[in-house]
Amino acid sequence: MVTLNDVYIIGAGETKFGELWDKSLRELAVEAGLKAVEDAGVYTKDIDILYGSNTLGAGISYQNDIGSLISDFSGIAADHIPALRVEASTASGAAAIREAYLSIRSGEYNVAMIGGVEKLTDIYGSEILDKTSTLLDSEWEAFFGATPAAVAALTARKYMKDFNVSKEVLARISVNDHENASKNPDAQFRNRISVETALNSLPVAEPLNIMDCSPIGDGAAALLLASEEFVKKNKIDGVRIIASSIAQDFLALHSRESIYRLDSTVIAARKALEKAGIRNDQIGMVELHNSYSIYGLIALEDLGFAEKGKAKDLVEADIKLDGRIPVNPSGGLKAKGNPFGATGVGQAVEAYLQFKNRAGERQIKGLEYAMLHNMGGSGSTSIVHILGGA
Amino acid sequence: MVTLNDVYIIGAGETKFGELWDKSLRELAVEAGLKAVEDAGVYTKDIDILYGSNTLGAGISYQNDIGSLISDFSGIAADHIPALRVEASTASGAAAIREAYLSIRSGEYNVAMIGGVEKLTDIYGSEILDKTSTLLDSEWEAFFGATPAAVAALTARKYMKDFNVSKEVLARISVNDHENASKNPDAQFRNRISVETALNSLPVAEPLNIMDCSPIGDGAAALLLASEEFVKKNKIDGVRIIASSIAQDFLALHSRESIYRLDSTVIAARKALEKAGIRNDQIGMVELHNSYSIYGLIALEDLGFAEKGKAKDLVEADIKLDGRIPVNPSGGLKAKGNPFGATGVGQAVEAYLQFKNRAGERQIKGLEYAMLHNMGGSGSTSIVHILGGA
Repeated sequence: MVTLNDVYIIGAGETKFGELWDKSLRELAVEAGLKAVEDAGVYTKDIDILYGSNTLGAGISYQNDIGSLISDFSGIAADHIPALRVEASTASGAAAIREAYLSIRSGEYNVAMIGGVEKLTDIYGSEILDKTSTLLDSEWEAFFGATPAAVAALTARKYMKDFNVSKEVLARISVNDHENASKNPDAQFRNRISVETALNSLPVAEPLNIMDCSPIGDGAAALLLASEEFVKKNKIDGVRIIASSIAQDFLALHSRESIYRLDSTVIAARKALEKAGIRNDQIGMVELHNSYSIYGLIALEDLGFAEKGKAKDLVEADIKLDGRIPVNPSGGLKAKGNPFGATGVGQAVEAYLQFKNRAGERQIKGLEYAMLHNMGGSGSTSIVHILGGA
Repeated sequence: MVTLNDVYIIGAGETKFGELWDKSLRELAVEAGLKAVEDAGVYTKDIDILYGSNTLGAGISYQNDIGSLISDFSGIAADHIPALRVEASTASGAAAIREAYLSIRSGEYNVAMIGGVEKLTDIYGSEILDKTSTLLDSEWEAFFGATPAAVAALTARKYMKDFNVSKEVLARISVNDHENASKNPDAQFRNRISVETALNSLPVAEPLNIMDCSPIGDGAAALLLASEEFVKKNKIDGVRIIASSIAQDFLALHSRESIYRLDSTVIAARKALEKAGIRNDQIGMVELHNSYSIYGLIALEDLGFAEKGKAKDLVEADIKLDGRIPVNPSGGLKAKGNPFGATGVGQAVEAYLQFKNRAGERQIKGLEYAMLHNMGGSGSTSIVHILGGA
C-alpha cells in the first residue's frame, strides 16, 4: 500500500569507518553528505532541512550545534536551509531518520538530509570511558563507576547463567560481523576472526572480551529522504521507508522489568511490523545494534527472530549472509564500526545499497524487506525501521 | 483557517528560573513536566512522545540521553512512551516544540510533551566559558578564545558605530526585561533596574556590561501539545500554534552576509508570517531572544518591527507592556533568565499564560497573536512560532 505521503531514501553515502586521525568531525560529516547528494543526483538547493545526528561531539570536539556546523561547512547555510541535531544516545542516527521521516510525512518538507557523524578518537585512555558513561544514568550508574561495558557484562552474566549460554555463542555474533565486514570496503575491521580468536582476546569486563565489544572509531553516514511527490516528479527509484517505530525503557538498568529482555526493542519491533503489515519471517536482512555481542544475541530475540534464550540456535548458520535471516551484512557495530551518531544512519546506508544491488561481495539476493534496529545505550530507546524496494 | 491536523498547546508548566543549587537536572525537568500534565488535565498515559530539549547537560551534568532521563525519572518510561532530545544550540527549546508540532501534523501522534531543561550552575568560573563556547564554531571561533559575549560585543560595536546607537539604547532592552520580570514570580531577577544602573554595571566585553548579558541559571519548562482531534474529543480550550518556521545562517560569524542582520531570523519570521497569513502589526506580543541586549535590538528589526538601525526608536515606549508591541512580557532572557534548553519552551509558556489570561500583573489585554523568537548561539539557527487563541 503506497500512500501519498510515503517517504523514500533517494541517496546514501558514508565515509570509511575507523580511526581517521587525519579527518575532523566537520570534514567527515561533509564528505558523507556530499556523497549522498551526488548519489541522489539532486541539487543541494533541493534540500529543505538537515537533521544532524551526533552523540559526543560536545564533550570530545568541544562542538555543540552540529546541525549548524554541517550546514555551515558544507555551504548549504548560504541557502538558509535549516539544521538541527537529534540525540537519543547511541540511537541518535535512527532518531534523526525518524524525525526526517515524520517531517516529510507532515507535508512540511519534500527533501530532508540526514547527516550522522562521530569523532571519538580525539581523546584517549580513560577519557573515553568518562564520555561514553554520559550515556548511562549519571547519578545511578556512572557515578558509581559503571561503564557501558560493565553494564553489558552484567546483562551477559545473568543471560548466560539463566539460559545456559556459553561465551562461544556470544563470540559467534562477532565472528559473523567480521566475516561480513571483510566484504565491506567502508568497514573499520576487514579481518576475519575465528571463535578461538574471540575467546582468547583480551578481557574487558568478564565475561566480555575485546572481541565482544564494538570499537571506538570515527565516521559519518548520510541519507537523503524524499516525499512521494518529489520521487514521482523526478522519476527517482527510491527505497521506501515502510515503517518507523520508537519505544522506550527506563534509562537505568535497575528499574527495568527484565535485565535481558529489552522492552524498548520488543515494542518498537512489534509496532514496526504492525505498521508494515508484514510478518517477521518476511524480513530478508537485519542490521541490529550489537554494541556488545550480548546485545546482538538479545536483539535477535527481542526483534522476534527467536524465543527468549534461544538465539543461540541461530548463531552458527541462520545469521550468515546466505542464512535464513542474514544479520549485519554491513559488518555490524563490531566490525563495520560504531561511530555513535553515524551508526544508525550507516545501517540504512547498508540496506539502501542492498536494495540497489550495490553491496558487492556481500549482496543479498531477492531482498524484499530489511529491518534496522538502533538502540540507545543499554536499551533506553530503541528505534526500528523497515525498508522495502520501491 | 483551522485544518484537521492543527496543533494546540493544552498545558504548560515551568520551574522558577535561577540559581537553583538544591535541584538537579532531572528534578527540574520532572517538576516542570508534572506541572504541565496537571495543567492540561490529561493522564500521563495519554502522552505519545517526549521531546527533551537541553544544550549543555553532557558537559556539565555528565548526562546525555536526556530524553530518556526525563522519561525514566518521571516514571513515564514504565509506559514505554518514546523520548528523544533535540538540540539546536540555544534554540533547542523552540526546535523541540517544532519537532513535536511536526510529529503531530504528520498524524503519528496525538499528544506530545516537550521538556526543556538546563542546569548551568553546577560548574563555576571559566568552566562555564568553556562549555558555552561549544555553541560557537569550535575551530574558527572558540579555538581562538572567542566567547559568546565577545561575539555579541563585536556585533554591538559595529552596529552602534554604523547606526549611531548609544549604550543607553542597548540598556533599555534590559531595563524593559527587568520591569516585566518584576511581575513574574518565575523570573530569576525580579528587581527593577534603571538605565543608569545598567550603564554603570560591571563591564563584560566592551561595550557590553553585565546588565547587557543574560545570566547563568537553571530552570525547566514544559508544554503539552495535542492534535485537533484530541482537543475536540476532550473539549480542551487550547492555544493554537498557527505557524512554525526555522531558518539557518552560517555558524561562524565571518561567513555571514552581515554581522548585524541575522538572516536566519529575517527568513524564519517572514516565513512564519506568511504561513500565519497575518501582518507583523497584528502581533500583540513578542518574546525575543535577547541573550545579549544587542541581539534584542537587532531581533526587533529582523523580526520586522523596525527598519535596520531603527529599533532604537522603539525602546523607550513601544516595547513596554502597554506599548505598541510589548517585548518579553515574561522578563525575557535578561531577567526571567536563560537556562538554554528551557528558554524557548519558557517563551511558549509565557504566551500560553497570556492567552489564558493567567499572566497576573503582566497580563496583556485582548491578545490575538503572539510571536516567539528563539535563536541558536549568535544566530546560526532561528526559530519563530506564531500562536493564537483557539
